[in-house]
Amino acid sequence: MSKDSPTLIAVDWGTTSLRAYLLGGRGVILDRLEAARGVQNVDKGDHEAALAGLIGAWRQGEAPPILLSGMVGSRQGWVEAPYVRTPAGLGETAAAIVTIDSKTLGAIGVVPGVLTEGAALGPDVMRGEETQIFGALAASGRADGLFVLPGTHSKWARVEKGRIVRFATYMTGEAFAALREHTILARLMAAGGEDPAGFAAGVAAAKALSAPGELLHAIFMTRTLGLFDRLAPAQLPEYLSGLLIGAEMLAAAKDGGEAATVIGSPALTRRYCEAGQSLGLRLDAAPDGCVALGQQALFAAWRGSAD
Amino acid sequence: MSKDSPTLIAVDWGTTSLRAYLLGGRGVILDRLEAARGVQNVDKGDHEAALAGLIGAWRQGEAPPILLSGMVGSRQGWVEAPYVRTPAGLGETAAAIVTIDSKTLGAIGVVPGVLTEGAALGPDVMRGEETQIFGALAASGRADGLFVLPGTHSKWARVEKGRIVRFATYMTGEAFAALREHTILARLMAAGGEDPAGFAAGVAAAKALSAPGELLHAIFMTRTLGLFDRLAPAQLPEYLSGLLIGAEMLAAAKDGGEAATVIGSPALTRRYCEAGQSLGLRLDAAPDGCVALGQQALFAAWRGSAD
Repeated sequence: MSKDSPTLIAVDWGTTSLRAYLLGGRGVILDRLEAARGVQNVDKGDHEAALAGLIGAWRQGEAPPILLSGMVGSRQGWVEAPYVRTPAGLGETAAAIVTIDSKTLGAIGVVPGVLTEGAALGPDVMRGEETQIFGALAASGRADGLFVLPGTHSKWARVEKGRIVRFATYMTGEAFAALREHTILARLMAAGGEDPAGFAAGVAAAKALSAPGELLHAIFMTRTLGLFDRLAPAQLPEYLSGLLIGAEMLAAAKDGGEAATVIGSPALTRRYCEAGQSLGLRLDAAPDGCVALGQQALFAAWRGSAD
Repeated sequence: MSKDSPTLIAVDWGTTSLRAYLLGGRGVILDRLEAARGVQNVDKGDHEAALAGLIGAWRQGEAPPILLSGMVGSRQGWVEAPYVRTPAGLGETAAAIVTIDSKTLGAIGVVPGVLTEGAALGPDVMRGEETQIFGALAASGRADGLFVLPGTHSKWARVEKGRIVRFATYMTGEAFAALREHTILARLMAAGGEDPAGFAAGVAAAKALSAPGELLHAIFMTRTLGLFDRLAPAQLPEYLSGLLIGAEMLAAAKDGGEAATVIGSPALTRRYCEAGQSLGLRLDAAPDGCVALGQQALFAAWRGSAD
């Protein structure tokens, strides 16, 4: 098979958006597209048509198979792919892929999410991030490590011998947005883009905290730092961001030592790496395209044969 | 002077509401009223008319003097009464009362807020709570203790020898509301009134936390506990409330030992006392009317004479 003939259409179909990759041999990305057709914007019964409309051009001639990961496999998505329990490696996850027989698109695999039990506070879940983690492992050739997927609901996952053994979700991005926009802090804050000094002050504040509830105090302090002109209005959102990201990192990095790989957008990855430097944590960035690499690896495991 | 002749009109004028008390000798409450005319609902220049309209009936015949506390003394209020710095007792606070000469209402005193410096994260402030604390001290005859004023922005204040020596604010109530209403948690939660089991589960979760950032994880866990039917939809807000209140208490009670007095509404006081029982903290409730007692004490100190 030529390196350039399409072998897989890999789709990361999340809550708010869809990213699709046309892959050639060994995971080479031949083409890609992105659309704001997240699971929450597609009605039950409309998924097949929505996907066909987007990737139609990739299905001329000999059509490659399709693999989907992310919230598309949740109860609110196209078809439910029940969670695999930790420890979950490529084998366990691929074995739980659910198949859709589509008249127009052929066989479509839906990657399951991962469930971890036994943590102090209850079960935790991911959908889509497992595929990115498998991609980061494939990219680095590693089988062990701590991985962080920052964002609305940041995930920190520990991998041992190629299997996700435990993970925890932090509501960092969404808590930031709710506090930023829907509390008294909103009145004092101004938009102003990135501000490394304000962000660093927030990270330093996170480091100064000693009890969990002090985070609620530090959040209020964002207000008095503004009232007393210790920080400019445009620095306050950056301070709050540094505070929450710093607190998340200090809590999560207890698990797995002081090195972690960030899988995220360039902007968020840079923020996490900056915070890590202040906190004495060694963070490196995963390469772009972890989703496609992870799908490729899952597809190979699913078909039971190396590519 | 008869015990029943009015000696003071004490007004707690906050951001969203106004509470006024007509006081007789020794702080006896002769009459009271409450109105939704908070500082944020009264335009600059309209405060005199707003107050006159509410307390007009109390000013027939020999009109008693008026003392105001709360956000009415902020820059956004009627007149700014600059903060007194800790340590702040009755003497320091009364000495910083600002006088308004009103043509229609006579001399009106405005109680200053209190500012504490030197805490790890920056300056902290209160306005109105200092008066309630002085009232709680007067009611109990004590000169030392830890006081909590729960709510949107909970305050924990340490008092030594009758003076507020330090305090900290926790954005507990407002963070709860923002998370409850403006995150993914909102979709799973149902209104259902008080639920002691859900609340206790949240308090227990707070106790299990070891790092500040774990609070961001525990907040997310509210979602998975709902998804996996570990808690009913109507229990989830109670869990989140117990989690945040418990975390606040564990952080704040490091300062000043294991006993504190709650100054708050009966419903909130009951929640704090319940949480305190689970956490091994001894909380007792201050009597009703601390504001009026505090105003009475400040007035006496202001006039430089015992009542």
